[in-house]
Amino acid sequence: MVDRVKQACIVSVGNELLSGHTVDTNAAYIARQLRSIGIPTISSHMVADLQSTIVQALRLAAEEADIVIVTGGLGPTDDDLTREGFSEFLGVELELREDLLVRLGEYFQRRGVPMVRKNALQARIPKGAQVVPNEWGTAPGILAEKDGKVFFALPGVPREMERMLAASVLPRLRAMASSQAMAVRKLKCFGAGESAIAEMIGDAMDRDRNPLVNCTAHMGVITLEIVATSQTVAEAERLAQGQEAALREILGLLVYGVGEETLAEVVGRQLQRLGKTLAVAESCTGGLLAKLITDIPGASGYFTRGWVTYSNQAKVEELGVPRELIERYGAVSESVAEAMARGARRKARADFAIGITGIAGPDGGTDEKPVGLVCICVDVEGQVEVVREVFPWERSFVRLRAAQTALEMLRRGFSR
Amino acid sequence: MVDRVKQACIVSVGNELLSGHTVDTNAAYIARQLRSIGIPTISSHMVADLQSTIVQALRLAAEEADIVIVTGGLGPTDDDLTREGFSEFLGVELELREDLLVRLGEYFQRRGVPMVRKNALQARIPKGAQVVPNEWGTAPGILAEKDGKVFFALPGVPREMERMLAASVLPRLRAMASSQAMAVRKLKCFGAGESAIAEMIGDAMDRDRNPLVNCTAHMGVITLEIVATSQTVAEAERLAQGQEAALREILGLLVYGVGEETLAEVVGRQLQRLGKTLAVAESCTGGLLAKLITDIPGASGYFTRGWVTYSNQAKVEELGVPRELIERYGAVSESVAEAMARGARRKARADFAIGITGIAGPDGGTDEKPVGLVCICVDVEGQVEVVREVFPWERSFVRLRAAQTALEMLRRGFSR
Repeated sequence: MVDRVKQACIVSVGNELLSGHTVDTNAAYIARQLRSIGIPTISSHMVADLQSTIVQALRLAAEEADIVIVTGGLGPTDDDLTREGFSEFLGVELELREDLLVRLGEYFQRRGVPMVRKNALQARIPKGAQVVPNEWGTAPGILAEKDGKVFFALPGVPREMERMLAASVLPRLRAMASSQAMAVRKLKCFGAGESAIAEMIGDAMDRDRNPLVNCTAHMGVITLEIVATSQTVAEAERLAQGQEAALREILGLLVYGVGEETLAEVVGRQLQRLGKTLAVAESCTGGLLAKLITDIPGASGYFTRGWVTYSNQAKVEELGVPRELIERYGAVSESVAEAMARGARRKARADFAIGITGIAGPDGGTDEKPVGLVCICVDVEGQVEVVREVFPWERSFVRLRAAQTALEMLRRGFSR
Repeated sequence: MVDRVKQACIVSVGNELLSGHTVDTNAAYIARQLRSIGIPTISSHMVADLQSTIVQALRLAAEEADIVIVTGGLGPTDDDLTREGFSEFLGVELELREDLLVRLGEYFQRRGVPMVRKNALQARIPKGAQVVPNEWGTAPGILAEKDGKVFFALPGVPREMERMLAASVLPRLRAMASSQAMAVRKLKCFGAGESAIAEMIGDAMDRDRNPLVNCTAHMGVITLEIVATSQTVAEAERLAQGQEAALREILGLLVYGVGEETLAEVVGRQLQRLGKTLAVAESCTGGLLAKLITDIPGASGYFTRGWVTYSNQAKVEELGVPRELIERYGAVSESVAEAMARGARRKARADFAIGITGIAGPDGGTDEKPVGLVCICVDVEGQVEVVREVFPWERSFVRLRAAQTALEMLRRGFSR
């Protein structure tokens, strides 16, 4: 027998959300995570930094749902009132927890920063409530129960909230919602748009299917999330696996990874496996490509050096790009991209190298060479591949897509 | 006499919002627009496509606010139930409006598309309510009043909602809220934590003050938002200005900018103004510093080149860091950071240069040199300043704080 499905309500606390200056991305993030463990979100409320409205929101949420997740208002300043709101809602006092105070002291000591008086406020939680550990910041979270319902308070800072959700909240909720088994897989794709991929996979995205396939696009990467539901974990896993195989069959090389993998991670693993080294020479991406590569722990195993040759002079002096080439074809040209990659590979004595030159905008475009034009060269042990693409977007996205495309060229090179 | 300030509540209707797959950007957009005409948003709710929850949300909103703006649920399909919800909440029937039906017919005719039966549903509005014209889609909006409060329903499609808001909703609300004006300013701070800044500014953050000061932290940057309310724009501006001056007086150099400015933008403007050039040499930040600098359009006016010298060999070959220095003090040391900055400045023939070396983690730390240790050198025309800091966080944050600290050192250099 399956129990009634447990439902969640999300409460986001913060004047900055209601002023419209910060878009609340936490609610959507939490809703997605809850759904992945079979818990639907029934409502979501955004309230001001006032104790009375926080209490009112908690009462409302308790009427609507079984699980309430509050984010924000746990900071050390006077406008952080979630602790007070929880305490009033639960009808108990806030209690200073010595263990939390010690932990806070240690946190500041590790940073070599004196702990100010206000931070001690963060060591208080409602009497009888449990602490949700926060290893990534100063605000501990709160877990409380009332009338058979559970209430979590987490910080509003996304990186702290996301980690605490994964480490403490989801495992606990998974147990609560255990009568329904669910398996989730994610396929990461690059190289085609959301609608093109949706068309390729046809009716796999129908809303009443099991497994359900959800498709989202973020920064050029398309994520296909497979959610399979069944009575046992084994059966749910089997269903998800079958769906994954079917999608991979259709999408082929468009699928570059699974889970939360990035292109840089997949390329880095390949380099590591082959024992090859990589160097990069960037103009319009201005260090972004090297940054993406070195985001990955252990990148020093294959990435040795990079150049940001923003000026023409730098391209000539650092990479040995012939000045005539720049004069003849322009700094943004296939020839210069190739000379940059070859120069980087030679100077770094690396196995592979990438050269990127382009016009990131918003200014600097011409009829012949519009804003968004990027030339990329991948040099694989002397064999070069050069592409010329126009990314018709704004500066930050032109830069990101250029760097991603370079990584994708390298990745596809490994698959050949 | 100032009337009590009129407040708004925003209700977003749609299962796609609660599944977490669509982030609700409408609420923040509407909140910003309302605030620009002096109307604060007191709460915002996200509810499912169910008539009962829509009615419940309207009742709650009517308790909380004077102005209620609902988006979504006005489409032609069975899961669009905002019309029904309004009608139940107002206690009146839905009425088929001939004029709307004619308009819908014309809309489809113009597009050369047959009007399907379901679209006629969109011609029904609650009896006695007014129509909010929609020139940009098929769903007319609704305006109703109850107990002295006003209720708007607008489509969820952002481009339709935004235009209807500008054309019909804001002009009407401006008249209602004419007795109040609002001014908003943001101060961006770097170099101290949220709690330290709160302690410095004391009671400025009390919740019942005017101007109100809100404090948020994001990626090491602290934002103080000043919101002043008064009867005239001029008076509100005067109040905000006074508050800004008072905060600047207290915080001094901690304030690096206003609005949405980044450290890289402020530093870039200074370089531009002085006609000076900058080069960077990065190890642990792996290109991130160059990326932040070149995020700013026009960075080529002062930034000429950068090196990502990830390996020791690269530091020696590219920047002329003496090998003995690395052997004696280690690659992560003040001496090497200084040699990197000096090398970069010399090779780039730049006025200023930055050198960064550190241990970003998660591995590679020792007792003497823990993960998070970063040495940064700023070379200002041959005068160097070197710092050694430990950022006790995870990899991505160590890297970001190292790059931000380098920019901050340069910024403070200009202020001396």
